[in-house]
Amino acid sequence: MKPDLRKALKLYLVTDPVLHRGRGVEATCEEALKAGVRFVQLRDKNASTRSLYDSALALRNLCNKYSSYFVVNDRIDIAMAVKADGVHLGQSDMPADVARAIMGSEAIIGVSVRTVDEAEKAKADGADYIAANLVFSTETKKDIKEPLGLEMVSTLSRASSLPMIAIGGINPENTALVINAGCAGVAVVTAVMNSDSPALQVERFLRVLNC
Amino acid sequence: MKPDLRKALKLYLVTDPVLHRGRGVEATCEEALKAGVRFVQLRDKNASTRSLYDSALALRNLCNKYSSYFVVNDRIDIAMAVKADGVHLGQSDMPADVARAIMGSEAIIGVSVRTVDEAEKAKADGADYIAANLVFSTETKKDIKEPLGLEMVSTLSRASSLPMIAIGGINPENTALVINAGCAGVAVVTAVMNSDSPALQVERFLRVLNC
Repeated sequence: MKPDLRKALKLYLVTDPVLHRGRGVEATCEEALKAGVRFVQLRDKNASTRSLYDSALALRNLCNKYSSYFVVNDRIDIAMAVKADGVHLGQSDMPADVARAIMGSEAIIGVSVRTVDEAEKAKADGADYIAANLVFSTETKKDIKEPLGLEMVSTLSRASSLPMIAIGGINPENTALVINAGCAGVAVVTAVMNSDSPALQVERFLRVLNC
Repeated sequence: MKPDLRKALKLYLVTDPVLHRGRGVEATCEEALKAGVRFVQLRDKNASTRSLYDSALALRNLCNKYSSYFVVNDRIDIAMAVKADGVHLGQSDMPADVARAIMGSEAIIGVSVRTVDEAEKAKADGADYIAANLVFSTETKKDIKEPLGLEMVSTLSRASSLPMIAIGGINPENTALVINAGCAGVAVVTAVMNSDSPALQVERFLRVLNC
């Protein structure tokens, strides 16, 4: 049985099509799932629909095996095709209320936000959680220039009743800071996907997160 | 009221985000719709989901005004979000049977094919029409190198009971050739979108097509 959503959000793994030290996305995710990750987001902005569908099918099965939540970045069609738990939407993706109308009340919908207005709109549109994007600077998301910083993270978290995760430049060393700033959890890409040992990294995160 | 699908497929307009002589996609489509086009496919492989959603909403409304079919290339999520009539799927897009399962029996699903096997699979997967892609060489679709030629178009058309349209390098001068090769209609991008007068071009096509 899947853990409670808020508990699963504590350590949220976002995949990357390139950063996986040649292990492949699936094998890297499996190491992380074995070590305790219970929320996985498939993210690949450049894949063809068919290739994304194939990856999503594989990760959907893998996440089921570990009773983990599984969502797809941006693509509602892919999420529905593989019966994922939901989608994660950026501000350039589908509006969350439209996604909710298509996917129904059971789907888990997350929305990336950078302002209090966006956080409030996500809540009004029926999102289940929000992601403060991006907190610290990182190499993964080159499109967003300006890190939010901890003060803004704290402002966003106070402004919304939804659980909020922090994404961008998160590592085991700065995790306590973002949790103290009001986050329900941390989203990680590089720190786990591109690690020599995803399992060890997950254990490090989980220790800080007291899971 | 929309015309019969087979009749609407006679002249099938595919949009292009760049080739529209600065008129914009919407204005160019409206000229073509006014002149008699009754099938429009929104195609933009590089747009963000939000931008594609906005374009699709606008074209959906425009096509309704002219009782025209409207489908979205590749993206089932966008098609569902704007209540389009359906989707057009390439071989790197979602499998057609998966699209059918998500979209239901009423959706119009088209599939691009280049071989008899692909044509047969499209039919088995529940497609409503197929598109021979690409017939003559063109500047629009740079990813596909080898034109099928008229003989292969004829083979594909004989192999399938579905209505088949021809795409790629179609103009008013070679339209009769592909119709004689067994096509139910022609799909056009450049010849209409990038024309000085989309309306005049549509009229030229419709004269050859006897509509």
